[in-house]
Amino acid sequence: MIDTAIIGTVALDSIKTPFGEVKEALGGSASYSSIAASFFSKPGIMSIIGKDFPKEHIEFFRKRGVSTEGIVTGEKTFKWQGYYEFDMNEAKTLNTELNSLLSYKVMVPESYRNAKYIFLANIDPELQLEAIKSMKSPELVVMDTMNFWIEHKKNELLETIRHADVLIFNDGEARQLFKTPNLLEAANKALKLVKRAVIIKKGEHGALLFNGNKHFSAPGYPLENIKDPTGCGDCFGGGFTGYLAKHKSTDDAAMRKAIVYGSVIASYNAEGFGTERLRQITHEDIEKRYREMKDIRDF
Amino acid sequence: MIDTAIIGTVALDSIKTPFGEVKEALGGSASYSSIAASFFSKPGIMSIIGKDFPKEHIEFFRKRGVSTEGIVTGEKTFKWQGYYEFDMNEAKTLNTELNSLLSYKVMVPESYRNAKYIFLANIDPELQLEAIKSMKSPELVVMDTMNFWIEHKKNELLETIRHADVLIFNDGEARQLFKTPNLLEAANKALKLVKRAVIIKKGEHGALLFNGNKHFSAPGYPLENIKDPTGCGDCFGGGFTGYLAKHKSTDDAAMRKAIVYGSVIASYNAEGFGTERLRQITHEDIEKRYREMKDIRDF
Repeated sequence: MIDTAIIGTVALDSIKTPFGEVKEALGGSASYSSIAASFFSKPGIMSIIGKDFPKEHIEFFRKRGVSTEGIVTGEKTFKWQGYYEFDMNEAKTLNTELNSLLSYKVMVPESYRNAKYIFLANIDPELQLEAIKSMKSPELVVMDTMNFWIEHKKNELLETIRHADVLIFNDGEARQLFKTPNLLEAANKALKLVKRAVIIKKGEHGALLFNGNKHFSAPGYPLENIKDPTGCGDCFGGGFTGYLAKHKSTDDAAMRKAIVYGSVIASYNAEGFGTERLRQITHEDIEKRYREMKDIRDF
Repeated sequence: MIDTAIIGTVALDSIKTPFGEVKEALGGSASYSSIAASFFSKPGIMSIIGKDFPKEHIEFFRKRGVSTEGIVTGEKTFKWQGYYEFDMNEAKTLNTELNSLLSYKVMVPESYRNAKYIFLANIDPELQLEAIKSMKSPELVVMDTMNFWIEHKKNELLETIRHADVLIFNDGEARQLFKTPNLLEAANKALKLVKRAVIIKKGEHGALLFNGNKHFSAPGYPLENIKDPTGCGDCFGGGFTGYLAKHKSTDDAAMRKAIVYGSVIASYNAEGFGTERLRQITHEDIEKRYREMKDIRDF
């Protein structure tokens, strides 16, 4: 039985940054977020892959305690090819092959249905909504999204936000969706849609939580050697949800800690290509950086 | 006797933002920073004005306990005319009349010479260096700067940085001066020049302190109603230095608190045009927002 159900993409990523490159490495929003969640809880993925998907990745998920029962198999795996320029702030897409994603229908295995914590990683908002509706009695639905859906499926996205407890997006997306340069104004508008809380990711500047009338600002972890930021947002969301699932808590204090743990895992992820660094870190590494985060914000 | 000597500009600013405008209002880096410092300590300004400078402003400085003994009088006051667009991030200059600033020679009154805390507000780095050298035995020299000096007087700026204890600049300037998109790398390069510490202001994202191998990240105060950001950086630097002067302390813990107090005063300043809001706030207002900053950062 899993406790954290995650819907999102499982992909093969080819990434180039000023510091190196990888070809057809394990990627996708559900991959990164479920690995991050697995440091705390028992996640299960809902997604689609193709017949070409390397078995070693499925094996890796299982070793990490990530259920793959909810992954269906289509023709060809979703592929993304992108690069980062020197400032590493924004992924530029060279090529996207949606492949089997185009025919994906959400399949929720019986062993997922009772999961109380749901993470809707970045994927089509209609699939996200279908996933919510397929769960028996979720306690906390956390959703992520991206600019693509704001541009191409805004109404569907807004509808899914109305069914979510916590909305996570980045500062650019917040400004874009609510047409304001002011993040506080964007957050207040988002709070009127979502059931409980809004989290704005700000990359190196940390993250903001707006929870009713409470406000939390998490520091960014200072990183000098960023190799590949792909998947950092997914790690943040997966780590956040997994931490809450582990502690069976959704109060403000738990959410604040969950944000810092999510940030810590994202900070490690940026230090290696693809999921490389996530494969190396231990619980001790995570606790060490969590303590550093306490010191960084202490005054 | 003053305890905080401040060199910088005293100006008449004409500012337009999407929320209103003011004409020939009290402005300049020394004005904002000395008002901010005056909430904590006894600052004195070193600057130049013209014969056209309204007496009411001098009266206002005196009422706030800001010494104007170090202000000399030339022909015409420095005037700046600028505007902000909707995102309020960057001041656009319409017109600059340097006027008497062009002939300014630093004059340090006897009553300033023993001040232990020096704030070099934004002004020509050669004048900043002259001010440092004119002081008897400063304990802490804090300097601010701006992109104009990075572009036009880089060598002089680097020389002044070598004589300062704490360098304050914003994220854009840090990246520009040290030619790197990575703030941590920029901070580490700056730490090799400056005597003690580096502070990077990040506007709404707060501020970072790099103090030897210690790192502090101050949150930004969440502001929805920003009317005019002019002078916020000066308020930050002046508030920071004034707080340290009041507590006669320069250790890491004091610097962290000083950064938060500087941020609080800057946050109020943005809520009104020119120095309007600074004229209204009380110590209670400052303490209230300081406590909110603690809560914002708590996990």
